[in-house]
Amino acid sequence: MTMRDPILLTPGPLTTTLQTKTAMLKDWGSWDADFNAVTADVCQRLTALIDGERDFVCVPLQGSGTFAVEAAVGTLLPRDGKLLVLVNGAYGKRLARLTEMMGRAVSVLDFGETAPVDPARVAAALAGDATISHVGVIYCETSTGILNPLAEIAGVVARAGRRLIIDAMSALGALPLSAQEIAFDAVIASSNKCLEGVPGMGFVLARRERLQQAMGNAHSLSLDLHDQWTYMQKTGQWRYTPPTHVVAALQAALDQYDAEGGRPARLARYQANCEALIQGLRELGLQPFLPAEIQAPIIITVHAPAVPAYRFGDLYQRVKDRGFVLYPGKLTEVETFRVGCIGAIGSAEIAQAVHAIGDALAELGAACGRPK
Amino acid sequence: MTMRDPILLTPGPLTTTLQTKTAMLKDWGSWDADFNAVTADVCQRLTALIDGERDFVCVPLQGSGTFAVEAAVGTLLPRDGKLLVLVNGAYGKRLARLTEMMGRAVSVLDFGETAPVDPARVAAALAGDATISHVGVIYCETSTGILNPLAEIAGVVARAGRRLIIDAMSALGALPLSAQEIAFDAVIASSNKCLEGVPGMGFVLARRERLQQAMGNAHSLSLDLHDQWTYMQKTGQWRYTPPTHVVAALQAALDQYDAEGGRPARLARYQANCEALIQGLRELGLQPFLPAEIQAPIIITVHAPAVPAYRFGDLYQRVKDRGFVLYPGKLTEVETFRVGCIGAIGSAEIAQAVHAIGDALAELGAACGRPK
Ligand SMILES: Cc1ncc(COP(=O)(O)O)c(C=O)c1O
Ligand SMILES: Cc1ncc(COP(=O)(O)O)c(C=O)c1O
Repeated sequence: MTMRDPILLTPGPLTTTLQTKTAMLKDWGSWDADFNAVTADVCQRLTALIDGERDFVCVPLQGSGTFAVEAAVGTLLPRDGKLLVLVNGAYGKRLARLTEMMGRAVSVLDFGETAPVDPARVAAALAGDATISHVGVIYCETSTGILNPLAEIAGVVARAGRRLIIDAMSALGALPLSAQEIAFDAVIASSNKCLEGVPGMGFVLARRERLQQAMGNAHSLSLDLHDQWTYMQKTGQWRYTPPTHVVAALQAALDQYDAEGGRPARLARYQANCEALIQGLRELGLQPFLPAEIQAPIIITVHAPAVPAYRFGDLYQRVKDRGFVLYPGKLTEVETFRVGCIGAIGSAEIAQAVHAIGDALAELGAACGRPK
Repeated sequence: MTMRDPILLTPGPLTTTLQTKTAMLKDWGSWDADFNAVTADVCQRLTALIDGERDFVCVPLQGSGTFAVEAAVGTLLPRDGKLLVLVNGAYGKRLARLTEMMGRAVSVLDFGETAPVDPARVAAALAGDATISHVGVIYCETSTGILNPLAEIAGVVARAGRRLIIDAMSALGALPLSAQEIAFDAVIASSNKCLEGVPGMGFVLARRERLQQAMGNAHSLSLDLHDQWTYMQKTGQWRYTPPTHVVAALQAALDQYDAEGGRPARLARYQANCEALIQGLRELGLQPFLPAEIQAPIIITVHAPAVPAYRFGDLYQRVKDRGFVLYPGKLTEVETFRVGCIGAIGSAEIAQAVHAIGDALAELGAACGRPK
């Protein structure tokens, strides 16, 4: 049994630094100028992440990432608009479901659970349905770790004269995403993934011009981004009580992000984590589910060891006893588990994690060809 | 200028103890059994707050209190239901607005900003409109500090055969509210008021039987309490990423709540804070806005000092320099400011705060009869 808190190999909430957590040891008045300055600083830096200073605004939102996704769709999709959702996993399905639940027209293009979105099929779907006004896509489909070809998709959507909404929850801050390079209306992410903050807020980076036109679209007061943004512009404050400690932690996390070297450095660390993890797991006889070309360096789906005795719960508990928290698989047909590459972890933690998984598998009597 | 963080005399976010904040120095896996146990413990204790163990369930929700209010209405009010909202301040108005925005029928009974809800008028309104299925009321209307006569209102609603939804955001944990004594379907509150946690989650204590019947009512996936509850029952987990640190802080805050002596002790401390504050402000020549009979011991609205030079911003800054954060008034017609009585503060902090306000007023040349 480990004496320290376990390291989270999960795709958010994830392991954060002590510096990020200690930023929460202060109570902020939500009306106070000091806290407004924190909000303004965080928003300015999040907008800069996508080179969006000129045309985009950051609207933070209380709640988890899903709340921000729903708010983005509910606010930016006109009542008579129609969203084409590109689905290759659980988060794409959720995007379609929340759009349907708010009573908007939605159409789904399904690519299964194991293939990336195919831009040619998107082009055909747009050509075939003139009523589609917007397209929604998941950049990294966290349910498997598939990387979708965002630049190609954005090109297809732009050429068809439609507008793109990107769920970049588990990608923003690590994978490339620049408003100078591709066309989109909104990017959604949250505090607790590649930016390595704590959970409790999402945010939408929205094209200013589109947000300005979005008054009255929303189906929900709490999730009305136009209202949130208008109020924030007028007062510098969040409309309703902000998760002050979470916002302060995100600011501290962004300080560390800059100190590490920004997006290139963050991506390089995650890529190294991902490669070391895949290599280490292979040496244990475990096979990654995705081919390397479509594997985002965010979370790895691994085939369960092919032994009859295997149960994920057993592996989970034994690895946890050794100091690491794994993540269950999310595939419907294949037995898998997942290991995250993101968070305040580097090569040392990855090496320790591989050892822990190996020891746990050996203990389970399911070492699957692990070198003796 | 104070060297320490200022004390928040605001009605949430408020000053929390260091013990509550240090509970956030750990990262939790949102899928992990340890965190599920925290959630279950918090929910069980919140249900017990209203003596609701038998008939009520606690559904926690990511986001601020407003999100939980909207979720409660959206989930519990059938699509063809109608909500009568009892309004005597900003939070009542917001309740009406969010109900309207989700496309449900709503009717408003307005009592102005300075009087409590009159149960006789509620009875008449219910008698006059058979289409009203539900009534929504704010227990303590935080925009002024008015205490509404909840037991009388609940009696009227029950006798008329309608169902009651209570926004007890700034009351729960301090003011009396027992399912054994009055009839209601739901109580809404949040982590960061009388329970003295940090902001980032709300919760709804819902009558189990009503929630069970509420499938398909919601206008929003994120705010669907039936779905959140069903998933939580099945898995022990929140549906979407929970604000793990905020939940852990609330658990720590509830430990301290119990150690202090629970609701009677919490109420006694707030009442003492309130009385000392009113007495101290009176001695400075400042007049409370509300008569004592309708003043809840949560937040005090104070008439601005009647001097031409007065600007709230000046007073605010000078009091803040002395270590205390005030709250602006929220009345449309009268110039006021507000001082909260809640949070991890007692007689020492209240005495210091009164001195700070006195010194600030003296400095502003607006001592208003302060004894020399
Ligand atoms: C791609 C993607 N979209 C949406 C979400 C939902 O975020 P949350 O769990 O914070 O609601 C996640 C969470 O992992 C995600 O990875
Ligand atoms: C009575 C009441 N209702 C609702 C709210 C809204 O809560 P939040 O600001 O957390 O959204 C408040 C906040 O002060 C309140 O006092």
